[in-house]
Amino acid sequence: MAKVLTSKEENYSQWYNDLVIKADLAENSAVRGCMVIKPYGFAIWEKMRDQLDRMFKASGHENAYFPLFIPKSFFSKEADHVEGFAKECAVVTHYRLKTDEVNGGVTVDPDAALEEELIIRPTSETIIWNTYKNWIQSYRDLPILINQWANVVRWEMRTRLFLRTAEFLWQEGHTAHETKAEAIEEAERMVNTYAEFAEKYMAVPVHIGVKSEAERFAGAIETYCIEALMQDGKALQAGTSHFLGQNFAKAFDVQFTSKEGKLEYVWATSWGVSTRLMGALVMAHSDDNGLVLPPKLAPIQVVIVPIYKGPEQLEGISKTAEKIKAELEARGISVKYDSRDTHKPGWKFAEYELKGVPVRIAIGPRDVENGTIELARRDTMEKQVLPQEGIGELVATLIDEIQENIYRKAFNFRKENTYQVDTWDEFTDIIENKGGFVSAHWDGTRETEEKIKELTKATIRLIPLDENPEAGACVLTGKPSSRRVLFAKAY
Amino acid sequence: MAKVLTSKEENYSQWYNDLVIKADLAENSAVRGCMVIKPYGFAIWEKMRDQLDRMFKASGHENAYFPLFIPKSFFSKEADHVEGFAKECAVVTHYRLKTDEVNGGVTVDPDAALEEELIIRPTSETIIWNTYKNWIQSYRDLPILINQWANVVRWEMRTRLFLRTAEFLWQEGHTAHETKAEAIEEAERMVNTYAEFAEKYMAVPVHIGVKSEAERFAGAIETYCIEALMQDGKALQAGTSHFLGQNFAKAFDVQFTSKEGKLEYVWATSWGVSTRLMGALVMAHSDDNGLVLPPKLAPIQVVIVPIYKGPEQLEGISKTAEKIKAELEARGISVKYDSRDTHKPGWKFAEYELKGVPVRIAIGPRDVENGTIELARRDTMEKQVLPQEGIGELVATLIDEIQENIYRKAFNFRKENTYQVDTWDEFTDIIENKGGFVSAHWDGTRETEEKIKELTKATIRLIPLDENPEAGACVLTGKPSSRRVLFAKAY
Repeated sequence: MAKVLTSKEENYSQWYNDLVIKADLAENSAVRGCMVIKPYGFAIWEKMRDQLDRMFKASGHENAYFPLFIPKSFFSKEADHVEGFAKECAVVTHYRLKTDEVNGGVTVDPDAALEEELIIRPTSETIIWNTYKNWIQSYRDLPILINQWANVVRWEMRTRLFLRTAEFLWQEGHTAHETKAEAIEEAERMVNTYAEFAEKYMAVPVHIGVKSEAERFAGAIETYCIEALMQDGKALQAGTSHFLGQNFAKAFDVQFTSKEGKLEYVWATSWGVSTRLMGALVMAHSDDNGLVLPPKLAPIQVVIVPIYKGPEQLEGISKTAEKIKAELEARGISVKYDSRDTHKPGWKFAEYELKGVPVRIAIGPRDVENGTIELARRDTMEKQVLPQEGIGELVATLIDEIQENIYRKAFNFRKENTYQVDTWDEFTDIIENKGGFVSAHWDGTRETEEKIKELTKATIRLIPLDENPEAGACVLTGKPSSRRVLFAKAY
Repeated sequence: MAKVLTSKEENYSQWYNDLVIKADLAENSAVRGCMVIKPYGFAIWEKMRDQLDRMFKASGHENAYFPLFIPKSFFSKEADHVEGFAKECAVVTHYRLKTDEVNGGVTVDPDAALEEELIIRPTSETIIWNTYKNWIQSYRDLPILINQWANVVRWEMRTRLFLRTAEFLWQEGHTAHETKAEAIEEAERMVNTYAEFAEKYMAVPVHIGVKSEAERFAGAIETYCIEALMQDGKALQAGTSHFLGQNFAKAFDVQFTSKEGKLEYVWATSWGVSTRLMGALVMAHSDDNGLVLPPKLAPIQVVIVPIYKGPEQLEGISKTAEKIKAELEARGISVKYDSRDTHKPGWKFAEYELKGVPVRIAIGPRDVENGTIELARRDTMEKQVLPQEGIGELVATLIDEIQENIYRKAFNFRKENTYQVDTWDEFTDIIENKGGFVSAHWDGTRETEEKIKELTKATIRLIPLDENPEAGACVLTGKPSSRRVLFAKAY
């Protein structure tokens, strides 16, 4: 098979787009900015979703579903939210079509204008807190620990598959608490849950911290986040968790009677990750041959390909293949045996490399005779001939090893591309020429943050949560700084 | 606890609304016609969804995701589809808000009008077939067996929780095939899958058949359906599966090269069930005390309630309760131990009756001494004192028995409320005074069907798929009829 991808070196951005499309993850739809998530891509997303869902439920959260539409007036209720939140939203103004008598087809019925326009949810704090108002009277009604899996729409002008699309899929947790301390604990718990998911399942190492005021979610007191490093040296925000204080409770008048009999405003958090994680997964590990999937998120963990001439050889090989398949499946490993006669083994090898299947087993007539198989790892591209005997245990161990190896590789890459910097020359040199995370002092002002962004396009990705931060001098202004923060160019 | 529900006898419709709200399944939202699905209701929907998803995957289907928006012009492409489909749709006309300088808050930015309006999907045939066009060139690309779990919007004027809402959740399967026979087989397979799900999991007996031309899905050649009977004698359409012929392939120009090298149009099916099933589940089994849930769809299958005075008694009871809980969970039974001291046992009994928990176990200090428990079934409301010894096996068996009993009860109810009728007097008498399914002859014309609907509000729910139908005379016109069809008033 001819090379189907632009190489990473040549054009990273094109490589990413090629890969997403050729590996059948997603494609652009007929609707500007909206994607079609194809079955293979969706199968990976389902694995992510199911694992996250298990983690949310294990920490006491329940799922629910709130309306797609938000009355326009709700947006105006929380001042910071409406000020800070992007206003690129899809607006529903009419509720009926009619037959177009002149041009044929259908047209919007001008008599069916809504009294108040409805916004397709870009996020659901407002509609949810308007609902919580009726659910909460007493401290006995708290906490509320709810999550929703949903589609949301933000009318982005420049879109890229998974990374930035007008419509995307996500989960949004919205919790309500008696006390400030409890809400902060929840916001921190969830950002840590995201970090655990990113590292253990996606094999993507992440930094945890809080956003600067300028980068905070509109309406939040504190935004916690995880940040990952992509192979081109750009950072990607992979999840956020917000401590919202009493802002939404005040905006929607949500009060409760405390244990002491006092009327108090409820404390809130919200937290979310989206199909953007698919972009992070692709960009963190993949290579010029295609996807490299961590086994824990791979829809197919092992593919078996027969190498044969004629139906007689195939029959013998299939017997061996089915036995190995059963042995692996008994260990909870997902296996595909691809015995299609419409494609040659070489084509299949390239196809499963492109799709990032972690382990490939090839079986030929010689292997049947010798009791062997040929095993190839996607992460290192190493091949080995191995005995069939004991293959189940070997593959089970190998799968864990691949998961760890992919993580280690990403971890080392990040380590090699993280710089501690104290001068402006160094700072600009690294941001311009090398990329990666730059740990530097910042004087804590919004002006300096903006100036640095303007000069270098680097932004403060996060302020680390170190217990004992080191003081120093701002890398741009030389003014006193209480701690280093992480800068990078970002997606 | 005081009676919280209007009785079924008194006002069936009010009983249903009360029940949905008091059992915490769903409530109306601030957005007209849209509901909030609450955690307990959503947990039941998740069980339905997960089981259906397993059944779809077991028959070779994969999930994918297509855009929420459909360009207006797509609706005009399939003539029957646009003619027959309700035009009450949510229409997006603008993509940006702006600060309202005069009144404060936000307003729709008049400069951000879309060139072509976007419709929120009421169903996705058009956008999906527009996509399939690029996926299908050769017979090797077929079949495509895709399902999507999604929200859809139909701007219904009169809405009722779960049964008819502007936004609802559903799955829509969209498949593409080489031959007519294969597509028909698929459409039939899926209506049978729905029937199996309704009967085995929801414990709701259903009739399978096809719709009359007047009731067919817009754009379909044949609409297969399952119809269930509610306790008020009205029928409810619980799922449909459409054989679409080549209509959408022609509308979107989707052709493939056959094995014989000829260019042919692709054959299509689509099939769906929605959160409407929640309404069917509630209405088929519940009583004046609340929900009656079939154990296979109950989020909590067994609740254990301690009957105690003071912490010392509770401690002893809790030890027994936790042991029983562990024993049941080891058998895959979901158990909640409710030891809250904020509510009395009587309150808890009523609460779990309201929520339809199939089995309740109460444990008092005497039970701890005697090695007994008190067990209550939700379906029959029977109570028994039983030994703790062997309780795991007993409850496991009981749960199967309850599932069967609920089905049998619904089956008998339907049997008692199905009438074979040959005269118009009988027909009107039953439809007006008794309700239920009426099996009667119909002359096969649209005029007679409409006349019957006008006179009685009864519609043809389905035409059964009997191999050897009995001929006769139309119940209204006396004209020849080739088979009996099922009439009923319907939701």
